[in-house]
Amino acid sequence: MREIEKLYDRIIQRVNINLRELEFEVNPYAQKIIPFVQMDKFYAFYGISPHHPLNFQFRHSNLAGSYFLGRCKVTNSLLYKSDIRGDELKKKGSLFQYQDYEVPIDEDEEIDIQDSLLIKTLVHNYSHDPETLEKFFITDTIAMNYANIHGSPSNGCFLGVFATVDLTTIRDCVIGNFSYVQAGEISHLNIEPGTIWVKKPEKFNFFYQHQKDKLNDYIYFTAGTRPQGLFMDFIEDRKEAFQRVFDMVNMEHIIPVPNNASLDRFAVTKGQTHIGENVLVAQRAFIQNSWLGKGANAQENCFIINSRLEGCNVTAHGAKICEADLGKHVFVGFNSFLRGRPDARLKIGKDTIVMPHTIIDSREPLAIPAGHLVWGMIKDARDLETNSLPIEEFSAIHSKFSLGNLLFEGSGAEFVSVFKDRIEHILQANGAFFNGSDQKGHAQKNQNISFNTIQPYPAGMKKGLFPTIIIEP
Amino acid sequence: MREIEKLYDRIIQRVNINLRELEFEVNPYAQKIIPFVQMDKFYAFYGISPHHPLNFQFRHSNLAGSYFLGRCKVTNSLLYKSDIRGDELKKKGSLFQYQDYEVPIDEDEEIDIQDSLLIKTLVHNYSHDPETLEKFFITDTIAMNYANIHGSPSNGCFLGVFATVDLTTIRDCVIGNFSYVQAGEISHLNIEPGTIWVKKPEKFNFFYQHQKDKLNDYIYFTAGTRPQGLFMDFIEDRKEAFQRVFDMVNMEHIIPVPNNASLDRFAVTKGQTHIGENVLVAQRAFIQNSWLGKGANAQENCFIINSRLEGCNVTAHGAKICEADLGKHVFVGFNSFLRGRPDARLKIGKDTIVMPHTIIDSREPLAIPAGHLVWGMIKDARDLETNSLPIEEFSAIHSKFSLGNLLFEGSGAEFVSVFKDRIEHILQANGAFFNGSDQKGHAQKNQNISFNTIQPYPAGMKKGLFPTIIIEP
Repeated sequence: MREIEKLYDRIIQRVNINLRELEFEVNPYAQKIIPFVQMDKFYAFYGISPHHPLNFQFRHSNLAGSYFLGRCKVTNSLLYKSDIRGDELKKKGSLFQYQDYEVPIDEDEEIDIQDSLLIKTLVHNYSHDPETLEKFFITDTIAMNYANIHGSPSNGCFLGVFATVDLTTIRDCVIGNFSYVQAGEISHLNIEPGTIWVKKPEKFNFFYQHQKDKLNDYIYFTAGTRPQGLFMDFIEDRKEAFQRVFDMVNMEHIIPVPNNASLDRFAVTKGQTHIGENVLVAQRAFIQNSWLGKGANAQENCFIINSRLEGCNVTAHGAKICEADLGKHVFVGFNSFLRGRPDARLKIGKDTIVMPHTIIDSREPLAIPAGHLVWGMIKDARDLETNSLPIEEFSAIHSKFSLGNLLFEGSGAEFVSVFKDRIEHILQANGAFFNGSDQKGHAQKNQNISFNTIQPYPAGMKKGLFPTIIIEP
Repeated sequence: MREIEKLYDRIIQRVNINLRELEFEVNPYAQKIIPFVQMDKFYAFYGISPHHPLNFQFRHSNLAGSYFLGRCKVTNSLLYKSDIRGDELKKKGSLFQYQDYEVPIDEDEEIDIQDSLLIKTLVHNYSHDPETLEKFFITDTIAMNYANIHGSPSNGCFLGVFATVDLTTIRDCVIGNFSYVQAGEISHLNIEPGTIWVKKPEKFNFFYQHQKDKLNDYIYFTAGTRPQGLFMDFIEDRKEAFQRVFDMVNMEHIIPVPNNASLDRFAVTKGQTHIGENVLVAQRAFIQNSWLGKGANAQENCFIINSRLEGCNVTAHGAKICEADLGKHVFVGFNSFLRGRPDARLKIGKDTIVMPHTIIDSREPLAIPAGHLVWGMIKDARDLETNSLPIEEFSAIHSKFSLGNLLFEGSGAEFVSVFKDRIEHILQANGAFFNGSDQKGHAQKNQNISFNTIQPYPAGMKKGLFPTIIIEP
């Protein structure tokens, strides 16, 4: 038995123990899709730049195809094609605001991944847990394809495919496929697939449930199977385009990039694509025949195809936009799937917020007016009626509200304000507002990154494991 | 002033202090050819394999384009396109034979490069210094283009272009361009360019001096100039072929390679080239339209063009062979330059030993019989008379002998025996005698190497310096 297989067993056992109360057994989910053969083949890489605190420690792990930026420790773990972005970690000397507390940060924060298995998972942002501010831990956790672990320390959890945990500490939880959870802190919960849940205790609670049968067409994954559905096919069809960017040591951009924008060398651009000023295109993003206006950002694993984004658009991790025209300042949340058709384009007016994990998939022309909040699943204009509301109207909600599959409690104004603040923060962090001297963000800082590639042992009992690698400034 | 420039000054100062007695000032030599701009650009790489003791420690250094295999520590140094091959270092638990002593090796040996500047230099083999068996040190040393530091710990030295030190501890020495020194231990010597010196105290002393004016056509380098001459042009003309192998992350061989042979992924092969069984083609070797018979090896920086090597041929580091036919078991030493012409091929009979730093450059067909020892500079059949001798005849020398520019003292038999033993050892180490199960060497062990690429800081004060990198098993 190779060491890497022993390591897999070790991780499975630890996660099972954590999830014993939920009677959840992870092996039937993970076993079929762990690509041990592939894991021997792919190199991993980490970025070196003067802007990101540098400290990597990789021990007894496989990291095939993964990407690291910023402080990160990986121990006894299997990471496959994961993006671990530590470029927003808290820095020594800063202050963390939590309710009325101002907590000084004593050392540079680090991402600490232990005894975990992450498949094509994005880890980003920083620990929002006030109890562990300097360590963004991911321990005894399994996250499946295209999961997002965003600012969410996690212990003893299983995340299904396309699941997102956002600004939430999770312990001993199962997060179902395509579920989005932003709830501060949760433990011992089994979240059904297709749940969109945003909660701020004593302020608001947003809860939407995708219809199971409809969701299954887009993504389906259960014990003993492989993930399937339209989302998987969509990504599979475009996989080959990434081959080239991973084959070359250094890549030259094939389209012009303004000097205040950045196009990651591991992103794919095709056709007539325009990169505007202050634009950030992150790695593993796929942009085809599209126009990205000033300050737009295209985050990891997103796809923007035959579309026009006017500017200051956020296209969050894993979001997909096809045949669409988005006005200025439209926000498209994690893993959302927005698809118009060449003869039936999707139009979204400015300042609209598309909630994370929203599916808009219309065969008829569809226009969403400016300033709306949009959620859930929308296949035509009728669905739109039960899955959107003008933001102004939403802000007027005071206690309880329900529409279609949505249940909302609490203050709509508070909910909207939290989202709007966040969008501004994302744009700022990504450098959308850079004026030539101030307000630098990722679009400007990420221009100068060197990438180091690392590979596993090619033979012997350690085949597939990486040697211990320690990188310091 | 960037940190990398300060580091350069630091190294220069330290070497100057070491060489003060020789009144040698290194800056005018190094200054013009230190490619600071290039140093920011190129990635370095290190090999990971189950067969090589793994331990790299890189600190406060630039390593552009360099290659590392086996234990190696680099501190406060500038290495540019150097090959540091630690795959023959002594291993813990082995015994080192020195005269009548059997010295146990207590820990894995490591190459330790400090405060040094190496340009396109090959470092290989292990420390032959019985005083420091576990550390192959290179400190306060500058080595210029295509120098070889082979089993030669070195402190406070300057090596000119194409200079080779072999199995010799050198302290506070200047080794002239294209000089070859194998002398056990030397200090405070200034070796003239074009000196070939092989000495075993109380046994023999081989001393040849290339004629300065003739040598200058091949290689010329002095203070304030850049290296020039036929050797430099020869390499420059073939530089572009290496571009492709450095641009790709993974390389597929374009010619068949037997499963008991190895062709390094950073070697270049062109035209109709045949790789026989048990053949080793090392990295940065260039093979064009040539036939390498069973057990031949082509070492780092060597060129074999339009030639046929029958088998068990050693083509040592930096040797060049063009339009030639070499019988079985012909040895071509370090940096030798052997050139026939398409209409005037060079033929060398089996078992012939071409001494390191030999130049054979004939416009007429030239045939060197089997079993000869060849040295110096040979432009035609007449030169051959004063620059070769049947090995049998050479073995008969008892005390003193001179021929052409050669002076020999001591036992010819001893000299020949030392060389022959060494050739057998080289063939064995390189896997020429592998029989399918026993006698594995580099040709077999080097098939499974993963390469990790590393890059310097791309911007800021540290631009061009690599972060601290520590790799352990």
